[in-house]
Amino acid sequence: MSQQLAVGIDIGGTNTKFGIVDRRGNILCDGRMLTNQHEDVHGFLDELHEHLSVLIAQVGGIENIRGIGVGAPNGNFYTGNIEYAPNLRWKGIIPLAKLLGEKFGVPAILTNDANAAALGEFQYGAARSMRDFIVITLGTGVGSGIVANGQLIYGHDGFAGELGHCIVIPGGRYHPGTGAHGSLEAYASATGVTNTALEFLANRPDTQSILRDHSKEEINSKVIYEAAMKGDPLAVEVYEFTGKILGEALANFVMFSSPEAIILFGGLTKAGDMIMKPVREHMEKNLLPIFQNKVKLVFSELKESDAAILGASALAWEMKD
Amino acid sequence: MSQQLAVGIDIGGTNTKFGIVDRRGNILCDGRMLTNQHEDVHGFLDELHEHLSVLIAQVGGIENIRGIGVGAPNGNFYTGNIEYAPNLRWKGIIPLAKLLGEKFGVPAILTNDANAAALGEFQYGAARSMRDFIVITLGTGVGSGIVANGQLIYGHDGFAGELGHCIVIPGGRYHPGTGAHGSLEAYASATGVTNTALEFLANRPDTQSILRDHSKEEINSKVIYEAAMKGDPLAVEVYEFTGKILGEALANFVMFSSPEAIILFGGLTKAGDMIMKPVREHMEKNLLPIFQNKVKLVFSELKESDAAILGASALAWEMKD
Repeated sequence: MSQQLAVGIDIGGTNTKFGIVDRRGNILCDGRMLTNQHEDVHGFLDELHEHLSVLIAQVGGIENIRGIGVGAPNGNFYTGNIEYAPNLRWKGIIPLAKLLGEKFGVPAILTNDANAAALGEFQYGAARSMRDFIVITLGTGVGSGIVANGQLIYGHDGFAGELGHCIVIPGGRYHPGTGAHGSLEAYASATGVTNTALEFLANRPDTQSILRDHSKEEINSKVIYEAAMKGDPLAVEVYEFTGKILGEALANFVMFSSPEAIILFGGLTKAGDMIMKPVREHMEKNLLPIFQNKVKLVFSELKESDAAILGASALAWEMKD
Repeated sequence: MSQQLAVGIDIGGTNTKFGIVDRRGNILCDGRMLTNQHEDVHGFLDELHEHLSVLIAQVGGIENIRGIGVGAPNGNFYTGNIEYAPNLRWKGIIPLAKLLGEKFGVPAILTNDANAAALGEFQYGAARSMRDFIVITLGTGVGSGIVANGQLIYGHDGFAGELGHCIVIPGGRYHPGTGAHGSLEAYASATGVTNTALEFLANRPDTQSILRDHSKEEINSKVIYEAAMKGDPLAVEVYEFTGKILGEALANFVMFSSPEAIILFGGLTKAGDMIMKPVREHMEKNLLPIFQNKVKLVFSELKESDAAILGASALAWEMKD
C-alpha cells in the first residue's frame, strides 16, 4: 500500500509543527522547530527538510508519501504562495508549495490555518459525515473555514472565509490590526475577551470582582477563565457578553450557507457551557424559523495539540491523483 | 438536435410565467396565467399543462425538451417540494417537481426564486464566465443566490442564501414578517425604502420635501424614486441611507465567500448611481484590504421581464444526463 501517508506542516508565528499522518488521522510521528530562526526561507526549508527526512525514513521512505499539506498564515490555495504574512520574517510573496515540492519531490499544497482546520474536521473530526459545515477558530484571532456541497469554499481569489472580520456591531469596538469598528474578532478573540473584561472593570467601579486583585496588565483570557470557573459574576458576564455577540454572528453565517453544523475550535472553547449556552441561545433567537433547532453547534473533536498537523495533512488527500 | 430546449416556470404570488428557452437564453415562446385561481394544486397543474402543451407543440414536441425548471417561493431543490409558502393558496408541502414530472413525462427540478435568478445570471447573464458570485434580488423582499466553486450553494437542507434576513443593525428596525430586528430586508426592500422615507419625514418636520405633497399612504418606492430623480434632497438621502446599509451588508458577504462579483437585481436597481454609489463606497470601506477594489459590483444584464423564466429554465441545464 504505497502513498497512503501524508505529511502535514503547520507554520505558526512561533513554531512550525510537522508530522506524518495516515488516512484515519493517526499521527505516526511528528516534531517541531522554531519558525523565525532563518532570515531566508531557503534556510527554513533546509532545516525542515533535515527534520522531516528522518521521519520519512521511519515510515519507509518518500514513496509512501502521497503529498505534503501546509497550513500557513495568509496561505493561498490557488497560488501555493504565502502572501504578505504579517507574523513571518519572510516578506512579500513566498512560493512555498512550489519550493517544498521541489525539495521533497512530492506534490505540496497549501492553505491558511483556519481552512486547514476545516479540512481536518472533514477528514478526521466532527464533520466526517457532513457536506455542509463551518469551522470557527477562536484563538488569538477569529478564523473560519467553510465547507459547502462537500467542498472547501476558497472564493475567486483564495481568500474566502474571513468571518472574523465581519462587522457585527456597526461602529463598535476598534480593531487595531485592521482599523475596522465592530468586527467579530474585536470581541470573540482572546484579546477581545480581555478587552471586554477591562471595559467592564472600568465602567462598573462599584462591582466587586476577583479580577480586581490583578493589575490591568495581568488580565488575560486565562485569568478571566479562572475567575469565571470560581464563579466570579463579572468574569461570567464576560463570557455571556462574548457568547451573545458570537451567537448573533453565527445566526448570520447560517443564513448564508445553511450548514449542518458549526464547529467551534480553540482557546475560548475551554470555557465549555459558560460560552456555549449564550452562543446557542442568541444564535437560535436570531435565526429564521426554518433554520431554528436544526444546526448542530459542537466543539471540535480533535486534540488541539494534534489539530494543526492533522488539518494540514488533510489537504494532501484533497489532491487529485 | 433533440433535447436542446428547456421549460422555465416562475411561480409568483400573483402570476405564473412560463416559457421555452434555448441554451443561449433565447425565449422562443412564453405565456402567463394567474397563480391562485385554483384551490387545489392539481387544478393549477391542469391549466398549466394546457397552456404549455400549446407552446411545446410549437417547438416540435416534448422530445425536444430536456427538462422543466421551476422557481417558486420556498422551493426546496433537494426535495422538489414547495414547503409552506406563505403567499400561495396550496398549504403545507406540495411535491411540485414530482407532479410536474409525471404530468409532462420529462424531469422537473425546482428551487426558490432567488436561486433561480443566480442560475439565470450563471447560464445567460452577467456571471457567464464566473465560478464565484452572489446575486442579491432587491424587490418586495431581499433574496439571494450564492454560487461558489461553480456550484449554487443549497446548504444541508436546501435553504441556504437567506441573506435578506441577516441582522445588519442589531436591535434595529422591526420586520413584521419575521419578527426580527434590524435585518437587511427591513431596510433594503421596497417596503424598507418606504419606511425609511416615512421615518425621515416624521423625524425632520422642518425639512422641505416634495414627498410632503403626498399622504402617508401614497408614499411608496415609486413615489420616492420619482422625487429623488427630481433632486428632492430628502428622497436622495433615503437612497444614500439604504445604500450605506446595503453596502455594509455586502462587505460581510464578501468576507464569507470572496466572490468575483455581486450582481444586484430588481426594483431598487432602477435608481442607478443614486443607490450604487453609496453601496460601493460603504462596501469598500468595510472590507479588509485584501478584498478592496477587487469585487465587481454590477446590475443584472437580464431584462427583468425575462429573468424569472430564464432563471427557472437554467435549472434544467443543471440536471445530470
